[in-house]
Amino acid sequence: MSFSNAKVLSSEPLANSEAVWTKLVKITYDDCKAKTRSWESAERTTRPKNGDIDGVGIVAILEKPTGPEIVLQRQYRAPIDKICIEAPAGLVDEGETTEEAAIRELKEETGYVGKVSETSPMMFNDPGFCNTNLRMVHVTVDMSLPENQNLKPELEEDEFIEVFYVPLTDLYAECKKLEAEGYAIDARVGTFAEGIEVAKQFKL
Amino acid sequence: MSFSNAKVLSSEPLANSEAVWTKLVKITYDDCKAKTRSWESAERTTRPKNGDIDGVGIVAILEKPTGPEIVLQRQYRAPIDKICIEAPAGLVDEGETTEEAAIRELKEETGYVGKVSETSPMMFNDPGFCNTNLRMVHVTVDMSLPENQNLKPELEEDEFIEVFYVPLTDLYAECKKLEAEGYAIDARVGTFAEGIEVAKQFKL
Repeated sequence: MSFSNAKVLSSEPLANSEAVWTKLVKITYDDCKAKTRSWESAERTTRPKNGDIDGVGIVAILEKPTGPEIVLQRQYRAPIDKICIEAPAGLVDEGETTEEAAIRELKEETGYVGKVSETSPMMFNDPGFCNTNLRMVHVTVDMSLPENQNLKPELEEDEFIEVFYVPLTDLYAECKKLEAEGYAIDARVGTFAEGIEVAKQFKL
Repeated sequence: MSFSNAKVLSSEPLANSEAVWTKLVKITYDDCKAKTRSWESAERTTRPKNGDIDGVGIVAILEKPTGPEIVLQRQYRAPIDKICIEAPAGLVDEGETTEEAAIRELKEETGYVGKVSETSPMMFNDPGFCNTNLRMVHVTVDMSLPENQNLKPELEEDEFIEVFYVPLTDLYAECKKLEAEGYAIDARVGTFAEGIEVAKQFKL
């Protein structure tokens, strides 16, 4: 396996009737003046029936003697034809809580066993364009636990994920460096990094 | 105008041939094992021909004696049928730089005239689902300038945006409060707030 194999070959219009994971909808709505208008939106078809979110992202923090580090991953993403820098993440399975999905996905994708310290509000990725949403779950990883010594990620046969770590305090500078190297930055990682940088700038 | 007027009336499947702003595509790609696969993706049709980003978001900071505050807005979003808490933002016009778009959109949506202090890497909103992307531009607003005294937003006839301000240091707590009040949180605002909170937590 190698990222150098991954590339888009072609792209063609997809009809809703053939789409499995996604759909395009035309919404008829009343605006703030009670005037009836329409808006185009893209949706996932996979949101659990009794759930309100599509996915979960994980802010996994390794508490190291040298300072806290965040767990990130490199993953090829066909929609953008680039290797993207992302937080561990996944869709929420039917019947699963947000926190259970976070702990499961972190273990599957990185091998780490962590403890939930915080769950974010429900957040919408691009609400003028689509309805996809997620919660970010903050997970602290105790590096002294035996289960965190010899990591055994359990990736699907078709998943190819490279895990790496960045000191939290360097995250924004690292995002800029990774962009210069040709990687794409996931907005959930990038804006998180901007928050850290602005907090440092204003000494919050 | 009132947010209480705004609501979704109906939603129906939309064919690519009738869509103006969006499209659904089926991507054929080689994965990391050079195995040919397909992936479904949603796209905007509006990205400028010679540009590489769809939109720009603005981290506008008011430097007040009581501490820095971020400019946010409430806007009804039909794709999620909620009033969303967002940073000022907009699409980039043909021939415009990212920074020009940021300064223009901030003035149009809030009235503030600001100075660019930072431009983020290109960031992808939800790269497993769609190709939409943006850069965040950080803008500092000098509150002593005459042009920032009597704000005159220039909203389109069909735009309804309420502007408000939050002390940067309170942003994450405020997002949770706003969620409890029924607002949706844009992920670019929410993860930025998480970054601030984590920086405070670890005293970065």
